[in-house]
Amino acid sequence: ASSSACVQKLLELGTKIVAVGRNYAAHAKELGNAVPKEPVLFMKPTSSFLENGGTIEIPHPLESLHHEVELAVVIGQKARDVPESTAMDYVGGYALALDMTAREIQATAKSAGLPWTVAKGQDTFTPISSVVRDELDSLSKSNVPDPDNLELWLKVDGEIRQKGSTKDMMFKIPFLISHISSIMTLFEGDVILTGTPQGVGPVKIGQKITAGITDLIDVHFNLEKRKRPGSC
Amino acid sequence: ASSSACVQKLLELGTKIVAVGRNYAAHAKELGNAVPKEPVLFMKPTSSFLENGGTIEIPHPLESLHHEVELAVVIGQKARDVPESTAMDYVGGYALALDMTAREIQATAKSAGLPWTVAKGQDTFTPISSVVRDELDSLSKSNVPDPDNLELWLKVDGEIRQKGSTKDMMFKIPFLISHISSIMTLFEGDVILTGTPQGVGPVKIGQKITAGITDLIDVHFNLEKRKRPGSC
Ligand SMILES: [Mg+2]
Ligand SMILES: [Mg+2]
Ligand SMILES: [Mg+2]
Repeated sequence: ASSSACVQKLLELGTKIVAVGRNYAAHAKELGNAVPKEPVLFMKPTSSFLENGGTIEIPHPLESLHHEVELAVVIGQKARDVPESTAMDYVGGYALALDMTAREIQATAKSAGLPWTVAKGQDTFTPISSVVRDELDSLSKSNVPDPDNLELWLKVDGEIRQKGSTKDMMFKIPFLISHISSIMTLFEGDVILTGTPQGVGPVKIGQKITAGITDLIDVHFNLEKRKRPGSC
Repeated sequence: ASSSACVQKLLELGTKIVAVGRNYAAHAKELGNAVPKEPVLFMKPTSSFLENGGTIEIPHPLESLHHEVELAVVIGQKARDVPESTAMDYVGGYALALDMTAREIQATAKSAGLPWTVAKGQDTFTPISSVVRDELDSLSKSNVPDPDNLELWLKVDGEIRQKGSTKDMMFKIPFLISHISSIMTLFEGDVILTGTPQGVGPVKIGQKITAGITDLIDVHFNLEKRKRPGSC
């Protein structure tokens, strides 16, 4: 297993977050969206990362953000035009991430044909766990034996809101790496957010999110009103 | 003036490109778009950068890409919640960039309410000059005395296609830095693409683009079909 310093370094090296929308059929339907024929891709800036235990900030005048719990795939080496057959060689590790979304802003953008950047890209909008390295120890198996069969869960104030399995992803990890790497070069430390299972919904100031990958990762985050210089 | 190594390093430090759409009224109108009340923001990955003299690749099955010549503002130090009054202190330099756009893909995305990532974010879709540092020499004035009055031009095979002045930007540089830094932290080396003047249009395989900022920067790029492993 890697040291904690090493693990954090992988994310620090990254320059982009490529997020996949509507990758679980049940979630696409709950928002009234069509199930896509190819992955819906959008970008989040790495400035939106928030470490485990941190505070998610809800910007004025919003009252809430939507939670989306997602498996994050962290790229381990430069990937360009990678075939599906070797795509898993480019995985450096996994993490649990939240794709926090200002749903009202996203809805307005969607109806105007505009990008989702402001809805998805604000500081603290991508809370993320430390990285579980996908490495074989000399004697043991990988820490993540089957990334296509991980249970993701999310609770708000202790109440379960999302529970799903990565086996329900429509586009699997090797396809996503191959597809995205055919569009843009992926670098070491870049992150793919693989989409959220059903159950998304609002979280408000003062609430707490706990989330995880069963038997692997646990995270917790607070929600507060975003503070700006000069505001009270 | 900084050394060339220093100048390249600034862009290499960056982790994001934040692009502004529809920042020149005449360009918004030529694409049939409304003039926005606040800046339209989208992201491009730094993997889309292409150095001066390089080859812009047109991916199959596209026959052309649209050229958009833009002033790039390169951030010189971390910026968060910066007021307009001090925003220019966060500028590290300027460059000339092309925001290459697969217009058909963008049009499809817009009508479906989907992000522009695939239309805007592919490798080689952000050709960029070296950075002109915004520094006062001990004896001389800044290299870029008035960024609000720069002439941008672009030619295809020697024929002028775009000519405009940054004085026609609706949202000026201090406002853009202030506004964007209120949404997401900007880091050293991050790039803001400030939008394109009118005259955008298609460029095809075999054509050559020259572009520049009058009296300051010149760049040139070829266009070729994108090569993929195993393709002829
Ligand atoms: Mg970096
Ligand atoms: Mg999501
Ligand atoms: Mg543009």
